[in-house]
Amino acid sequence: MKSRHLLGIDPLTPEEIQLILDTAEQMREIAKRPIKKVPALRGKTVVNLFLEPSTRTRFSFEVAEKRLSADTLNFSASGSSVEKGETLIDTARNLEAMEPDFIVIRHPHPGAPHMLAKVLKASIINAGDGTHEHPTQALLDALTIRLRRGTLEGQVVAIVGDLQHSRVVRSNVLLLSRMGAQVRVAGPPSLVPVGMEKLGCQVFYRMEDAIRGADVVMMLRIQLERQERMNFPTVREYFDLFALTPERLKLAKKDCLVMHPGPMNRGVEIDSRVADGPQSVILEQVTNGVAVRMAVLYLLAGGSGEPVAD
Amino acid sequence: MKSRHLLGIDPLTPEEIQLILDTAEQMREIAKRPIKKVPALRGKTVVNLFLEPSTRTRFSFEVAEKRLSADTLNFSASGSSVEKGETLIDTARNLEAMEPDFIVIRHPHPGAPHMLAKVLKASIINAGDGTHEHPTQALLDALTIRLRRGTLEGQVVAIVGDLQHSRVVRSNVLLLSRMGAQVRVAGPPSLVPVGMEKLGCQVFYRMEDAIRGADVVMMLRIQLERQERMNFPTVREYFDLFALTPERLKLAKKDCLVMHPGPMNRGVEIDSRVADGPQSVILEQVTNGVAVRMAVLYLLAGGSGEPVAD
Amino acid sequence: MKSRHLLGIDPLTPEEIQLILDTAEQMREIAKRPIKKVPALRGKTVVNLFLEPSTRTRFSFEVAEKRLSADTLNFSASGSSVEKGETLIDTARNLEAMEPDFIVIRHPHPGAPHMLAKVLKASIINAGDGTHEHPTQALLDALTIRLRRGTLEGQVVAIVGDLQHSRVVRSNVLLLSRMGAQVRVAGPPSLVPVGMEKLGCQVFYRMEDAIRGADVVMMLRIQLERQERMNFPTVREYFDLFALTPERLKLAKKDCLVMHPGPMNRGVEIDSRVADGPQSVILEQVTNGVAVRMAVLYLLAGGSGEPVAD
Repeated sequence: MKSRHLLGIDPLTPEEIQLILDTAEQMREIAKRPIKKVPALRGKTVVNLFLEPSTRTRFSFEVAEKRLSADTLNFSASGSSVEKGETLIDTARNLEAMEPDFIVIRHPHPGAPHMLAKVLKASIINAGDGTHEHPTQALLDALTIRLRRGTLEGQVVAIVGDLQHSRVVRSNVLLLSRMGAQVRVAGPPSLVPVGMEKLGCQVFYRMEDAIRGADVVMMLRIQLERQERMNFPTVREYFDLFALTPERLKLAKKDCLVMHPGPMNRGVEIDSRVADGPQSVILEQVTNGVAVRMAVLYLLAGGSGEPVAD
Repeated sequence: MKSRHLLGIDPLTPEEIQLILDTAEQMREIAKRPIKKVPALRGKTVVNLFLEPSTRTRFSFEVAEKRLSADTLNFSASGSSVEKGETLIDTARNLEAMEPDFIVIRHPHPGAPHMLAKVLKASIINAGDGTHEHPTQALLDALTIRLRRGTLEGQVVAIVGDLQHSRVVRSNVLLLSRMGAQVRVAGPPSLVPVGMEKLGCQVFYRMEDAIRGADVVMMLRIQLERQERMNFPTVREYFDLFALTPERLKLAKKDCLVMHPGPMNRGVEIDSRVADGPQSVILEQVTNGVAVRMAVLYLLAGGSGEPVAD
Repeated sequence: MKSRHLLGIDPLTPEEIQLILDTAEQMREIAKRPIKKVPALRGKTVVNLFLEPSTRTRFSFEVAEKRLSADTLNFSASGSSVEKGETLIDTARNLEAMEPDFIVIRHPHPGAPHMLAKVLKASIINAGDGTHEHPTQALLDALTIRLRRGTLEGQVVAIVGDLQHSRVVRSNVLLLSRMGAQVRVAGPPSLVPVGMEKLGCQVFYRMEDAIRGADVVMMLRIQLERQERMNFPTVREYFDLFALTPERLKLAKKDCLVMHPGPMNRGVEIDSRVADGPQSVILEQVTNGVAVRMAVLYLLAGGSGEPVAD
């Protein structure tokens, strides 16, 4: 890896993406051993700085860190000096002064991890900066497709839902298009940001057009609390137009993979028959999330080749 | 152990209860060493999934897990995907996809751990499912009695207080009666659930009748916030009828043990002179809680015989 | 160390202070190694009992504990039995019954750690008891000065700000005067407690008088939420009279050190040009905080001489 940081998919070369995915495949093997632990990061300290709630992603990072024998510390916004009005830079410099090796940061504002990377010595891993980038999510999605299909190249991937507020769509489009996949996105017009096609995807406003003939359908989570801004009078109307149902799934290829970053709203953006159906790889995504985060930590820590056995 | 799970006392044979208590006695010795740790669960991951607040029980499990060298992850309801409307099954499947070895679950609804045990590969330990079962509490109570008395058989145990809302009474009655103790329960009529005697105990409505001649008195915590539903006009009136005072304790056997699952309401269900008196084994219960939880984790992980020295 | 506890600076001899600072200097070296960990506290359990929010101090202790290979458990007020009305003594006895080796306690009430030390077997470390003592903060401040100046003896140290509500000023005055420094304090009359000079310092009501010719200026945090009680109509007026600005700093010695316990209110008690200027050692304080806490834990655990290499 050229950089000490993982700030996004954008700065990565295809070769680096490949290296992370290859390493993540090896990391998956560690979880199958009786002792699911390697000493690769022993004596290293990782701070999980989550300034926006995200139990799921924080949890996945924490599992990954512990499998690599790192010491982990969780720092969340509530009850912290952040609430006492301290700036992000001061909070980060204070954490840095305790000499952690990694800071995994989730922050509501785009660019927050990049700002930290400029002033700190620790390796920064972006665990989601607003709607900007969420690189480990895109990497785990890519790993999931690659493990099932053997390659990303030429895969037709449809991403459907609230493109505007999604934390993951940007990183996914960047990664998949860079690796030779053909990416389509679809959502209600009020939820499609202007200029999406420039990221390297085709934009559709009817879900059916996007998923027709697709190899993979990724559904995005609808944030129910934002429903009003969506200009959808009811959840039911959203479901009618943009939920993945067994009927709609038939428009895709026969063995099309069904993905969702979770947590799912069953009956809103996805029908339970699809979520739990044979084409769903939603739980594989979660398993691969741990492996991808192990790989990123391992590579940024200078690891190479085969992770050492315990 | 026949099962990979500890869902309750109900499914355990007397032999299994005996095995857990014997193993817990060995675990108590580990805490007396300079290095209070054994590598028995090294490389294993335990998720403490507490969907109802319980610092005390969570803490006791965490100590037990760390003494066995497991990696622990705490997942609580607040700020989590559970709050974003995810179902318990989806939350649990997601945790499972990260390949933990154990899930310790506290949940407000009876049967939640059993539901998880049906769909997950991890070993499930019930840390309290509503008022249904709380098996490790019953086991630690039994260990405390056994360590003091040498046996459970023939012991007269009186359990007194809010039987209706207690998380622990059901498991305690099941375990004690199964091991040959004679169990009496007592509480105000409005707080005695219908059909309690079917669990294997005698029901009383006057505290004095239950504790007369008892070897052990277990007091239950009054949940002050539920006082209205209790049909008691004041705490004082509850105290007058159902608190364990030095006077009432004289009705029991001379060396009768005094127990309480904590946290205590001093001056409500128990008089401080009794709580801190020579017959109280309340803090031994806490110490034994760690030992019992170590034993359960160790046995479910396939351990047998003497836990390996560090 | 004569005592098993660190309850305050007051009970320490100058020799003990010296020993802690010497040991902390060695601990700083550990953080520079590739594996920043020593096995000194392996198998020991440390409970961080924070009954008042303090992410920063709790975090620093947790890093220190993990660098010494201890097992750490965090117990905070929210959602705990403390909220269910349990007394501090009962909470502490319950924690004790789980046989931790150390309890690090932050509590709003002066004397809370001393009360625990009387009844518990664990070593108690005071991490701040109201405005009474916060010994590890004073020790890290002293270490910072000593590392920069070679000695504490004869140093003129000015402590400026809200002396009334400060958690740190008392311990700092005690330590610095005991080690031969000349301590001056300054704050607005409404925020200077009666009898401060008895601690061993000179009291000023004009900031300029205190910092003139000083070797070190320590600024205290203004708690904005207490502004009303301060009798200052606006933050601006406080800034005008008591903030450390580049102009005021010129009154001190040329190479005067600038310190702040954090979190800083930039533009309230300290000007950013000073906070980020070449004389600021504010981040060194944070780094030294981890080293001092490692030293305290190590010495109280019976360690002596050179901490063992990993």
